[in-house]
Amino acid sequence: MPHSPLATPTRSPGARPSGDRPSGARAVSRCDLLGEVPYSDVPGQLFRPYLGGGHAATLDRIAAWMAEAGMRARIDPAGNIVGRYEGSMPDAPALLLGSHVDSVRDAGRYDGMLGVMLGIETVAHFAERGRRFPFALEVIGFGDEEGSRFPVSMLCSRAVAGALAGQDMAQDMVDAQGTSLADALGGFGLDLARFSQAARRRADVLAYVEAHIEQGPVLEAADRPLGVVSAIAAQYRFQADVTGVAGHAGTMAMDLRRDALAAAAEMVLAIERIGGGGPPDLVATVGRLAVGPGVPNVVPGTVGFTIDVRAGTHAVRDGAARAIRAALSEIAARRQVTLDLAQQQDLPATPCDPALTGLLEEAVRQATGHAPHVLVSGAGHDAMAMARLAPVGMLFLRCAGGISHNPAEAVDEADADCALRALTDFVARFAEAHQAGRR
Amino acid sequence: MPHSPLATPTRSPGARPSGDRPSGARAVSRCDLLGEVPYSDVPGQLFRPYLGGGHAATLDRIAAWMAEAGMRARIDPAGNIVGRYEGSMPDAPALLLGSHVDSVRDAGRYDGMLGVMLGIETVAHFAERGRRFPFALEVIGFGDEEGSRFPVSMLCSRAVAGALAGQDMAQDMVDAQGTSLADALGGFGLDLARFSQAARRRADVLAYVEAHIEQGPVLEAADRPLGVVSAIAAQYRFQADVTGVAGHAGTMAMDLRRDALAAAAEMVLAIERIGGGGPPDLVATVGRLAVGPGVPNVVPGTVGFTIDVRAGTHAVRDGAARAIRAALSEIAARRQVTLDLAQQQDLPATPCDPALTGLLEEAVRQATGHAPHVLVSGAGHDAMAMARLAPVGMLFLRCAGGISHNPAEAVDEADADCALRALTDFVARFAEAHQAGRR
Repeated sequence: MPHSPLATPTRSPGARPSGDRPSGARAVSRCDLLGEVPYSDVPGQLFRPYLGGGHAATLDRIAAWMAEAGMRARIDPAGNIVGRYEGSMPDAPALLLGSHVDSVRDAGRYDGMLGVMLGIETVAHFAERGRRFPFALEVIGFGDEEGSRFPVSMLCSRAVAGALAGQDMAQDMVDAQGTSLADALGGFGLDLARFSQAARRRADVLAYVEAHIEQGPVLEAADRPLGVVSAIAAQYRFQADVTGVAGHAGTMAMDLRRDALAAAAEMVLAIERIGGGGPPDLVATVGRLAVGPGVPNVVPGTVGFTIDVRAGTHAVRDGAARAIRAALSEIAARRQVTLDLAQQQDLPATPCDPALTGLLEEAVRQATGHAPHVLVSGAGHDAMAMARLAPVGMLFLRCAGGISHNPAEAVDEADADCALRALTDFVARFAEAHQAGRR
Repeated sequence: MPHSPLATPTRSPGARPSGDRPSGARAVSRCDLLGEVPYSDVPGQLFRPYLGGGHAATLDRIAAWMAEAGMRARIDPAGNIVGRYEGSMPDAPALLLGSHVDSVRDAGRYDGMLGVMLGIETVAHFAERGRRFPFALEVIGFGDEEGSRFPVSMLCSRAVAGALAGQDMAQDMVDAQGTSLADALGGFGLDLARFSQAARRRADVLAYVEAHIEQGPVLEAADRPLGVVSAIAAQYRFQADVTGVAGHAGTMAMDLRRDALAAAAEMVLAIERIGGGGPPDLVATVGRLAVGPGVPNVVPGTVGFTIDVRAGTHAVRDGAARAIRAALSEIAARRQVTLDLAQQQDLPATPCDPALTGLLEEAVRQATGHAPHVLVSGAGHDAMAMARLAPVGMLFLRCAGGISHNPAEAVDEADADCALRALTDFVARFAEAHQAGRR
């Protein structure tokens, strides 16, 4: 059963949830509470872009919840909120739990935010028991992951990881209203010149673990509430341009045609067949396709389309890309059309840390009573950026229908409870391993 | 070898060609002469919309050529130019030869105009010999066939055929500059109120025979200069809308997808296969296809596309449409997507008159020394409208690469000579048959 959003959003913010015991259900209800004005910039929907009014209100609310959970909260120079639950010794390095707090336009309520809320619940769980570890627990809510305001994405996790690129801080970068990043930061009392000081020292961060909704249908289809991510997929993007011969739809006899769309159709099916013929983590997609001249009574002369290929390993991705290239070339030659295939993007895979993944698998087995479902994340996450700084691990939660980036996004409260059990168990196991490593 | 356009368009209009003997080559060179300013409204290209300045200059020039060929020229109430070569008795009914004089934007020089010029050459051939028939020969140049100015087409042949529809004379019909048809006619000294008086009496028209470039590649592929048209194709147009489930290109596993584009691709190939599996006159085309949401990283959720099906007979067209509907339904059901298939256009076939077609076939056999190539016209022509008034026949001329509606349109002078031999032979055979019929 998907969780029902709060019916009474006008109640005093946080009044009900903060009185409850730590739970996954409370994390879900807090996401719901944050799904509307004043935590959204747009009435009637959730849109929480980086450094907007909704973002500011959200950080105030999260800071209060962090404080209630026993953390000291701060806003870092990139606008991330960071709550710290000290370890048994001051200035100990930290295990970071978190995700992002921004959203796409007309978003669901759980993408990103649920990972932050579950981090707070995890700390609250241990704070309630007065349990401290030889490391600090920190919960981080990244300000920008979606890139829904400025023409960059994962800006804030890359800042923390010390992995900003030159163009990220471009002085001429503005949002759709013409507001610069510098001015937007100024509105938060932040300074563009100090932005990169959000970077953490490697010695201060033991690991980063992110809980996130799957945003796909695999766990639901497998009837599992949780999954452990082995890697964030490697990705290729190609642009394919097919050129045939345009002609009059009435006068160009079928056997004389060099129809660019018929050729492209055969290519789309070859890409689907190759994508479906590999391991489960391999996906291949034609998402955009444009026909020229694109009028009903003209045989198409040109077709351009994109090819997105992802897999957990470079070997699988690259093998699929080679097979696609060969299949498309054969189709083009046989149909006497020309094919131009240009690579536009090559994102390497981000393997999750095997030791962290092993601990997460044990924790999931304990929490669910089932063998853990291990899967590759086809979508990008802050963990990709954080992997530049520290070992990373990811826990996926089942979401209804695999739907995300959509107000219909839904998470079962029982699944969130299960995730909280897995996260607290993971932290305990991490502490044991940490102790063992120091012995 | 395609004909080369005149290199010196500034020479005195008509000075060279009108001094020559009647020939197909002269018809081609006259089309070339009419391919530029002042016979075009746009410098550097041919664009001769109905009732524009280029049209006016063209009518003056054609009237002079008609007079030289022994005809009396007039402009009818719809702006058509009509040249009449009297028969052996005054007021005899007429055999009409012709086509249209208007063009699309950035047009080729032969689409339409070559049929008018070949009509003039045909009359000139008999006038030179002083030969008269028991019927008049008329050459008609229709003012609007392409519909490149007002939002209607074949306006002028439908006026002559007495087949205007109510919306053709709509008072609020304007061109892209906001000029009404009434005002445009006024500029030609014509009156919208008298437009429909262009209609001819059935008793005055024995037949209409149109020579036209094929606008397709069939004759070139068959290595024949001429073809005889058996029918103008019946046409269906459908809009197909496929709805699957959109999803994240990275997270939606291949075996869980209901990809609207992959389904549509399979449909495009089924349509191609059915179109290619029938008689040569059957064609089936997907010319427009749009993908939603149409972004590289989203599995397509919706695809809309057009289906254009044409054949010389309703039986063939309708059989193909039924096969397409069945194939698409099977694909949709198997892939668990929904299909909405809506008929948008149903144009009946226009059979050419069998007796005229038989005479044209004999004339083509005589002119070419080959068995006549008989084909269906997949494109519409003025003969469709004129069939409402009188028996119609059509002669097709090979054009280079089947290219039309393009400045690269090209016709071989030798093919045009061959067409003129066929037309003059046809008129002689028509006269024999006419005499035989009256005996």
